[in-house]
Amino acid sequence: MTIDVAKVRNETPGCARVAHLNNAGAALPPRPVMDAVTRHLELEAMTGGYEAAEENAEALDRFYDAVAGLIGAHGDEIAYVENATRAWDLAFYGIRFAPGERVLTTTTEYSSNAIAYRQRGVQVDVVPDDADGTIDLDALEAELRKGGVRLVSLNHVPTSNGLINPAAEVGRLCRAAGVLFLLDACQSVGQIPLDVDEIGCDLMSATGRKFLRGPRGTGFLYARREVLADLEPPMLDNAAADWHAPDRYEMRPDAKRFETWERYMAGQIGLGVAADYASALGMDAIAARIDVLATRLRSGLAAKPGVTVHDRGVLRSGTVTFTVDGRPPAEIVREARARGVNVNVAQPVTHGYDPDAVDAVVRASVHYYNDEDEVDRLLELI
Amino acid sequence: MTIDVAKVRNETPGCARVAHLNNAGAALPPRPVMDAVTRHLELEAMTGGYEAAEENAEALDRFYDAVAGLIGAHGDEIAYVENATRAWDLAFYGIRFAPGERVLTTTTEYSSNAIAYRQRGVQVDVVPDDADGTIDLDALEAELRKGGVRLVSLNHVPTSNGLINPAAEVGRLCRAAGVLFLLDACQSVGQIPLDVDEIGCDLMSATGRKFLRGPRGTGFLYARREVLADLEPPMLDNAAADWHAPDRYEMRPDAKRFETWERYMAGQIGLGVAADYASALGMDAIAARIDVLATRLRSGLAAKPGVTVHDRGVLRSGTVTFTVDGRPPAEIVREARARGVNVNVAQPVTHGYDPDAVDAVVRASVHYYNDEDEVDRLLELI
Repeated sequence: MTIDVAKVRNETPGCARVAHLNNAGAALPPRPVMDAVTRHLELEAMTGGYEAAEENAEALDRFYDAVAGLIGAHGDEIAYVENATRAWDLAFYGIRFAPGERVLTTTTEYSSNAIAYRQRGVQVDVVPDDADGTIDLDALEAELRKGGVRLVSLNHVPTSNGLINPAAEVGRLCRAAGVLFLLDACQSVGQIPLDVDEIGCDLMSATGRKFLRGPRGTGFLYARREVLADLEPPMLDNAAADWHAPDRYEMRPDAKRFETWERYMAGQIGLGVAADYASALGMDAIAARIDVLATRLRSGLAAKPGVTVHDRGVLRSGTVTFTVDGRPPAEIVREARARGVNVNVAQPVTHGYDPDAVDAVVRASVHYYNDEDEVDRLLELI
Repeated sequence: MTIDVAKVRNETPGCARVAHLNNAGAALPPRPVMDAVTRHLELEAMTGGYEAAEENAEALDRFYDAVAGLIGAHGDEIAYVENATRAWDLAFYGIRFAPGERVLTTTTEYSSNAIAYRQRGVQVDVVPDDADGTIDLDALEAELRKGGVRLVSLNHVPTSNGLINPAAEVGRLCRAAGVLFLLDACQSVGQIPLDVDEIGCDLMSATGRKFLRGPRGTGFLYARREVLADLEPPMLDNAAADWHAPDRYEMRPDAKRFETWERYMAGQIGLGVAADYASALGMDAIAARIDVLATRLRSGLAAKPGVTVHDRGVLRSGTVTFTVDGRPPAEIVREARARGVNVNVAQPVTHGYDPDAVDAVVRASVHYYNDEDEVDRLLELI
């Protein structure tokens, strides 16, 4: 299966207006996602919010199987959450740590997650990178062998350095060590094939708005059946738990224990449609197309005098970061936007423990619906 | 100022389709709210999610002053949160309790909040009602005098019994006792005038979708400047707090410390428009109009043989609960809906500590945009 670029561009109204190379920020949604969201909002306005949810119960319910289908999970392992950070938080704060238990993470851990470690006061050990910036698997194995590790947290595709961490290899080491594995898939879901069994993660947090092309203000948490019973979300409403008596409540047995009853219903439907849309195109085809465009962008940038591409890693994502001698990143972004090309500035502070991340860079991120001409337009600007 | 009913109905597309008496569930939004939401979603789709937020920065920012204006607060005391329950949770879990400190609440405390007390393990003492079901202010004062109270939590308008609790009187007692006062305004915001200084609450949680007529999946938390510095939200992302180093983060000084950076942006704009819309009509006029319709509904129901109105309290809200001899509430709701009249079933389990709440009731809830004919249509059905 390959991507029919003309067709997907035709299904993406925004393609007519901008060369959108800010997919690592938020992608342009396809028409079916837009329509699903606005149709439900219209229904809510015409017949009432609760009444619309009843009428569209099937589409709301489809969300769970659509997302599960995309990542090789079961529908009852999926929770609808407003964004990836809250999904990650709900999982992390749901883990009961015994005193002294450690967390292992990477240099590029997202800073919101780093704040959570500090807030909770757990011991964090940062696994070093290998020479190219990928997590050093030998170092991870050595840390696991030392013992006392409760959780390994992996940033699958760091927000600003272009690499793809070897999630399945990390998963194998975690399983061998009997340690919980939480994958931050914020930048990988919808971009590369994900299978929770192949990866071996117990928990996965993801956003809707990025490569999945869903609505803003949507995300999901995957929680493996086998670990669910041990996780108590840090906040529980009367749909996440049954209220029996002042001294007793009982959590739902499935991943919906992480949800709130009230939510952006139209967004849930839209995110389900986005997951089905990605599955229908095929994640292999999507990843292959992104790779073609990202390679074109990387080599084009590398050939320009005065341009430094800051990507690290061996496996590369659709996110390409670079700087240009003598031109501040914000200025490049501004000029590109003025000419209809969307890129953005990546702030180093988003990587929690990265000693090398000191300066802002330009972040260009391609998706399968971009075409070669859009990549070339950016290259011409630089 | 009085409500021009024809005008507001004309601005509410759903009025042409249903007699919506389920405003305590989710109200029909007015056209300006619908338009603001869909226009922003369209902009996101045409120009990118981040780019749209930059372009609509003013409308996003207006949200804070719009909500603050509605409740007599300052913009920096407002946080945008996805729903009222999360707003309440973020406030409650943000309070640092000293060992042994107590919470005082009411019999009709929302069960999600009751679950939070239990999850956190704080001691809860339920202040009894007076004979009509309102919080007994003498009993509250006596409990406060005993000491050891950290927080008073008040359900302003309980979800299923029609009364309005005397928030300002409770506020005066809390201030005199130097005790934190958290007001659950989920059912009161947009229905009756609220002024945080008159009420004297330190924290207030609210939803967008009910009487405020905003989008589903939106809400807000008010946190008074004077108490903000003492509250640490249970989860913090890298916009709520600045990440300085692995051992140090610093929370924002304002109420945005309760927010996540990623959110349903279109909903935020829509909720701001809804707050401005309510303010422009005038909360006094809104409350007066609701009272007229609710009185008509109550007296109409009370005159029917076999109908029991379950409302309690002296001050009554737009929410009217009732049962009909020999007819299950769900059946009444179904039949009403089939004839284009929206009411819903209120489950007693939503009231956490109410010993009298054992059976489901029909809940009809009027808003200012309803007309007398719609009320009469429900009455004819019963």
